[in-house]
Amino acid sequence: MSGPLFARVALVGIGLIGSSLARGVKAEGLSSEIAIFDASPDARAAARELGLGKVEDSLAAAVTGADLVIIATPIGAYADLGPELARHLKPGAILSDVGSVKQAVVRDLGPHVPEGVHFIPGHPIAGTEHSGPRAGFAELFKGRWCILTPVPGSDTAAVERLQTFWQRIGSMVEVMEPRHHDQVLAITSHLPHLIAYTIVDTATNLEESTQSEVIKFSASGFRDFTRIAASDPTMWRDIFLNNREAVLEILGRFTEDLTALQRAIRWGEGDKLFDVFTRTREVRRGIIDAKQA
Amino acid sequence: MSGPLFARVALVGIGLIGSSLARGVKAEGLSSEIAIFDASPDARAAARELGLGKVEDSLAAAVTGADLVIIATPIGAYADLGPELARHLKPGAILSDVGSVKQAVVRDLGPHVPEGVHFIPGHPIAGTEHSGPRAGFAELFKGRWCILTPVPGSDTAAVERLQTFWQRIGSMVEVMEPRHHDQVLAITSHLPHLIAYTIVDTATNLEESTQSEVIKFSASGFRDFTRIAASDPTMWRDIFLNNREAVLEILGRFTEDLTALQRAIRWGEGDKLFDVFTRTREVRRGIIDAKQA
Repeated sequence: MSGPLFARVALVGIGLIGSSLARGVKAEGLSSEIAIFDASPDARAAARELGLGKVEDSLAAAVTGADLVIIATPIGAYADLGPELARHLKPGAILSDVGSVKQAVVRDLGPHVPEGVHFIPGHPIAGTEHSGPRAGFAELFKGRWCILTPVPGSDTAAVERLQTFWQRIGSMVEVMEPRHHDQVLAITSHLPHLIAYTIVDTATNLEESTQSEVIKFSASGFRDFTRIAASDPTMWRDIFLNNREAVLEILGRFTEDLTALQRAIRWGEGDKLFDVFTRTREVRRGIIDAKQA
Repeated sequence: MSGPLFARVALVGIGLIGSSLARGVKAEGLSSEIAIFDASPDARAAARELGLGKVEDSLAAAVTGADLVIIATPIGAYADLGPELARHLKPGAILSDVGSVKQAVVRDLGPHVPEGVHFIPGHPIAGTEHSGPRAGFAELFKGRWCILTPVPGSDTAAVERLQTFWQRIGSMVEVMEPRHHDQVLAITSHLPHLIAYTIVDTATNLEESTQSEVIKFSASGFRDFTRIAASDPTMWRDIFLNNREAVLEILGRFTEDLTALQRAIRWGEGDKLFDVFTRTREVRRGIIDAKQA
């Protein structure tokens, strides 16, 4: 299957994900026209320089006449975008996004969506620790999952069209309830990031002499956490503020498990440690088998 | 500089690190003879099959006549090795190891070291999540740090000779107090591993339906933790049991920092989250600048 899927795609937010989408849409010929808006003049200038599409200086100009609008800003910006989007969305258009939390997106954007517009939130499970329009690349989504969370009553044909869009960009697509999405991502993504941010923060609070050694000898495990903890601060602030319940719930479980291991270390209970460390090894095998390693 | 540095090197324990050392010693021509012992008959058979050196069926046979003996077993085995080693070490020989904890090594092996033998504990900061003789490779130590922790009164010439050994295998060498080593490694290595083991364990305790989704969508952060949590269970049990004080101390700091972030999430304090997430980004830059990324 080939040829354009949408006459005009509008991308709102042209950071790592938005600019990768622009490149992917172009590379796969998914749209004859790519319209771009970003609230940051710097990002718009970079997008122009990179030739990512037709860069507009207002949200209205980018969104007007688009058949597919994808919001790729930090989630915290959605609430403000809603009313303005509502005035310019074309009947029959699909409105989607790439945010890492889905219930909050339904809550913030849902009420603004005009009748006749298909609102289908989405979340590509892809990214790097780099941010901004220059960090994007067309292959970012290849072989990765994209989760769509249609709201009740969504038009099946529109969902299928968006599914085809992501498949042609290289992703595998899964459809899920927004609430379930937020629970699964709390453990697979939000908790790991919170933990990585914390451990790197703990290291930065050490005496300065030790800090330089932490960097020097980081290859022993710490390094992997610093990569995760280099992710975009605004994006992650908004994720934690908008998936609070699921994150606090999984964090509670994590803290219980950590306390149990701490106690085993204090009391020299080697068997308990060994059992946990053996069990966790199996999970890695599962990921390798699922070709997500 | 080239040519053999030691007439006979004995490697006790032929897992990932021991077998990488055997390969490195051979590749760099650092010794005319490599003697190998491992308590596991399977590991000995694999070492023979791989042609890693002269595999002996007893510790005594491997160690006798060696100029350099390197212990590369899990730390928990050291206390039992001590008395037997003492009977067979040659005067003038260097006794070293590769264990991830250094105070416990001084405590367990130190009292057994005969007069005239140079006891210089060591720790190469290198490894992968794979274990066993087949997992090793000669380049494992290239561009990585090796920390030596000589005990008070160590012979300077012997320390320099061991330093040259590690440099020729490709490492950069740092000399450090055992106690300081254990503190630095508690934050750079032991805590990250404990956290990774915990988070993967938390995931395995979820309902089964969610578990398969955790694996499916692991690319969003969780995946990096599973790699660390696939490390050798025996080795890591021994590390936590033998670096208890330093690990519990740094774990206490980590828990405080995590609780502060948890509170910020609960009360919606976005500025606090943003500040921490911005600060941690800098650490990544330090690691990239130090060429340890």
